[in-house]
Amino acid sequence: MTRLLETIPIIFSLVLPYGSEAAAEGKPARAPNIVVILADDLGYGDLGCYGHPVIRTPHLDRMAAEGMRFTDFYASECVCTPSRAALLTGRLPVRSGMCSDNRRVLFPNSKGGLPAEEITTAEALKAKGYATACIGKWHLGHLPQYRAIRHGFDHFFGLPYSNDMDLDTNAAPRAGASVNPARQVDWWNVPLLRNDEVIERPVDQTTLTRRYTEEALQFIKRNRKQPFFLYLPHTFPHVPLFASRQARNKSPRGLYGDVVEELDWSIGQILETLRKERLEAKTLVVFTSDNGPWLTQKLEGGSAGLLREGKGSTWEGGMRVPFVAWWPGRIKAGAVNHSLACNMDLFSTFLKLAGAPIPTDRIIDGKDMSPLLFGAGPGQRDLFFYYRGTQLFAVRKGPFKAHYITRPGYGREPAAQHDPPLLYHLDHDASEQFDVAKDHPEVLADLAREVERHRAGLVPGRLQLE
Amino acid sequence: MTRLLETIPIIFSLVLPYGSEAAAEGKPARAPNIVVILADDLGYGDLGCYGHPVIRTPHLDRMAAEGMRFTDFYASECVCTPSRAALLTGRLPVRSGMCSDNRRVLFPNSKGGLPAEEITTAEALKAKGYATACIGKWHLGHLPQYRAIRHGFDHFFGLPYSNDMDLDTNAAPRAGASVNPARQVDWWNVPLLRNDEVIERPVDQTTLTRRYTEEALQFIKRNRKQPFFLYLPHTFPHVPLFASRQARNKSPRGLYGDVVEELDWSIGQILETLRKERLEAKTLVVFTSDNGPWLTQKLEGGSAGLLREGKGSTWEGGMRVPFVAWWPGRIKAGAVNHSLACNMDLFSTFLKLAGAPIPTDRIIDGKDMSPLLFGAGPGQRDLFFYYRGTQLFAVRKGPFKAHYITRPGYGREPAAQHDPPLLYHLDHDASEQFDVAKDHPEVLADLAREVERHRAGLVPGRLQLE
Repeated sequence: MTRLLETIPIIFSLVLPYGSEAAAEGKPARAPNIVVILADDLGYGDLGCYGHPVIRTPHLDRMAAEGMRFTDFYASECVCTPSRAALLTGRLPVRSGMCSDNRRVLFPNSKGGLPAEEITTAEALKAKGYATACIGKWHLGHLPQYRAIRHGFDHFFGLPYSNDMDLDTNAAPRAGASVNPARQVDWWNVPLLRNDEVIERPVDQTTLTRRYTEEALQFIKRNRKQPFFLYLPHTFPHVPLFASRQARNKSPRGLYGDVVEELDWSIGQILETLRKERLEAKTLVVFTSDNGPWLTQKLEGGSAGLLREGKGSTWEGGMRVPFVAWWPGRIKAGAVNHSLACNMDLFSTFLKLAGAPIPTDRIIDGKDMSPLLFGAGPGQRDLFFYYRGTQLFAVRKGPFKAHYITRPGYGREPAAQHDPPLLYHLDHDASEQFDVAKDHPEVLADLAREVERHRAGLVPGRLQLE
Repeated sequence: MTRLLETIPIIFSLVLPYGSEAAAEGKPARAPNIVVILADDLGYGDLGCYGHPVIRTPHLDRMAAEGMRFTDFYASECVCTPSRAALLTGRLPVRSGMCSDNRRVLFPNSKGGLPAEEITTAEALKAKGYATACIGKWHLGHLPQYRAIRHGFDHFFGLPYSNDMDLDTNAAPRAGASVNPARQVDWWNVPLLRNDEVIERPVDQTTLTRRYTEEALQFIKRNRKQPFFLYLPHTFPHVPLFASRQARNKSPRGLYGDVVEELDWSIGQILETLRKERLEAKTLVVFTSDNGPWLTQKLEGGSAGLLREGKGSTWEGGMRVPFVAWWPGRIKAGAVNHSLACNMDLFSTFLKLAGAPIPTDRIIDGKDMSPLLFGAGPGQRDLFFYYRGTQLFAVRKGPFKAHYITRPGYGREPAAQHDPPLLYHLDHDASEQFDVAKDHPEVLADLAREVERHRAGLVPGRLQLE
């Protein structure tokens, strides 16, 4: 289902010859550099350009003003590990086994990780001559055989898992990742790795956003003459929140704002460096979040804006996230795209842009977003499946979303089964307030057929997170 | 209390010589044209530039990109009549008597209206040679002595009150203003007036947005050689919702979206006409709403975004509204202003810009916003009082808001008194989720002193709405 593309009339928009010129000459365009910047637990409503009244994100707002902002973009799961697996493989986590109904994500004592047979964007692009790096939080397996450098990344610098894991209960007398403004960096014994080597433990978390950024800028400069794939999954604003000395106590929103504004600073650094290196016409940059805001962290969690619920749930607030795409000259400046898309689509889009073949020996759930990004036509995605672990909780087709199971993101409340399903018209009712199931039996029947079709082709992978 | 002004770096911004040139020559700048466009019941979250995912408002988004968008701007009351009285007089409604604890607004059987002794922006500007017009919904008294043309407006074209009043119970078998997609224009016997003359009854409400717009464009063109004050209080998106044939069934958001998108079209027409007439450097245009969204209208009501509650309540969603100011060359393009301001401040600002004296024989609650608009310095407003009728329900100072009384916008739930008050830090917690009263006794004490000071100077006017 195609939705109208809306464009804010911008005073003027740069249209650079790159790409279109090559195409006009009948030559294939050079494969672009690709940069993916991922925030951790950032909510749909947490950026200025998505309506946050307090948090200042001038660099992301500018990125949106110069690029395309999506309103209906989804993380493919509502927690870290499965969402990231989906982003990098283009496949539902249930296929790769990178999900769980119990533990939800990988932990420091987990034995599993992203299976070797999964093909990541990095592997596919590396095969096409790309330099590749993962700088930030991996969280797809911390044991050596699962690490980023075993999955197509030439280089890794970052954390193996979330920054609230490895709590040092001796150092942290008041244990837990919950709100505490006086938190100490050494309460968490989280390691910082360069490739396979632990270079700092516990890592000084106040330095992470800056060090990731510096590392990313060096990678860009070092590879300016060849195509590169930079995957930059930031550690924040996942709790425990830490900002650098430079960013601390700057945001009126408090520590959460400091942390998000430092991420925004980082994005400004990346885009500025691409401009300085004259790479802006050769580089696609996308920004998104791995899932919705962790609402039970209260003031240390973000905002889903008008969307219902947050991280951990299959309500919109748990999975619909900001998405901004930037490529001056190729993506129309100031565009707002209302099409349905999700982070698995990035896999297919990037492979297409790099001229890499989409694997045919397995089911790929991602759809090529190029027509949406470059205004060439309608999107290819009509359906989105909302999984929580191995279970399908909800499905969206066009504007309609049916919930078969609901459950709050966190807390002890059990899952509620819905028969008939709850049905929301997300265009009319983005906040999922008004169940219209009784008005649309034909929609429920159609969605039931789609679910049946989906399930018929589904072979769950061996679970890696139990 | 001053908040940082944030600017989205825009590719370039027009800086026209008007004003600054005159100032450089030591001559006072020509008094600018002033256009106030008011939406009715539009919520904080209902525009693209305030984060709505579905409603398309490219003209307002462009107005914001070329002008200044405020994040902390308030309507001075949470329902129509008092909010409008405040906007046009710069005074709390309790002083003019334009509020009520029971009826809340004026009705067709009301006997009162804006007292003759109140000074409106139109009167003050007319005395300085401005041409003045009110085009749209008045709602400050429908009896002849209270009409717009008795309050400084040369010209009136519009409705005397809300479009859901004068329900024709014979014509409307299923009475009420609530959701009904099959509504008929003749269910409401609302009159359209030109000055004192009823020119159509019932008015065809599907034509209102277009006819207001045409009337406004004519007024602008007719007065292009002299300063003018155009007050354009649109009838919509107040229920019953009606869109023109051109706008109907266009928005994915449904009828509510059609109506808001038609308002956006209207704003595009106004700005385009100002450009064509070469008046953009001589005209300040502001857009806002009279109060928050009417949530009990369900899908025919708007969204307050991340804010709590809506119209009729003193929670943020009832009173914090969009505010966009546009004056190319004078207001910095793409600015986002986080300062506290409210619609009473427009009175003082407009009088200042027009060189009209601020009345000294009465208390004026408005503060001059010029320093905020033109980047010359901090704002003058540190306090905001949230009234519901004659009662003070809450107060904001800097980021802190204390609720003494709360009550849902609509419904039978009685008012709840709070002692100690509820206290929210609106910068940390725009959604008013986490009461911090026990952490800040000194703030509560300070706010109590401010309330005491405020009450000491307060002389309630004779109530006009009972």
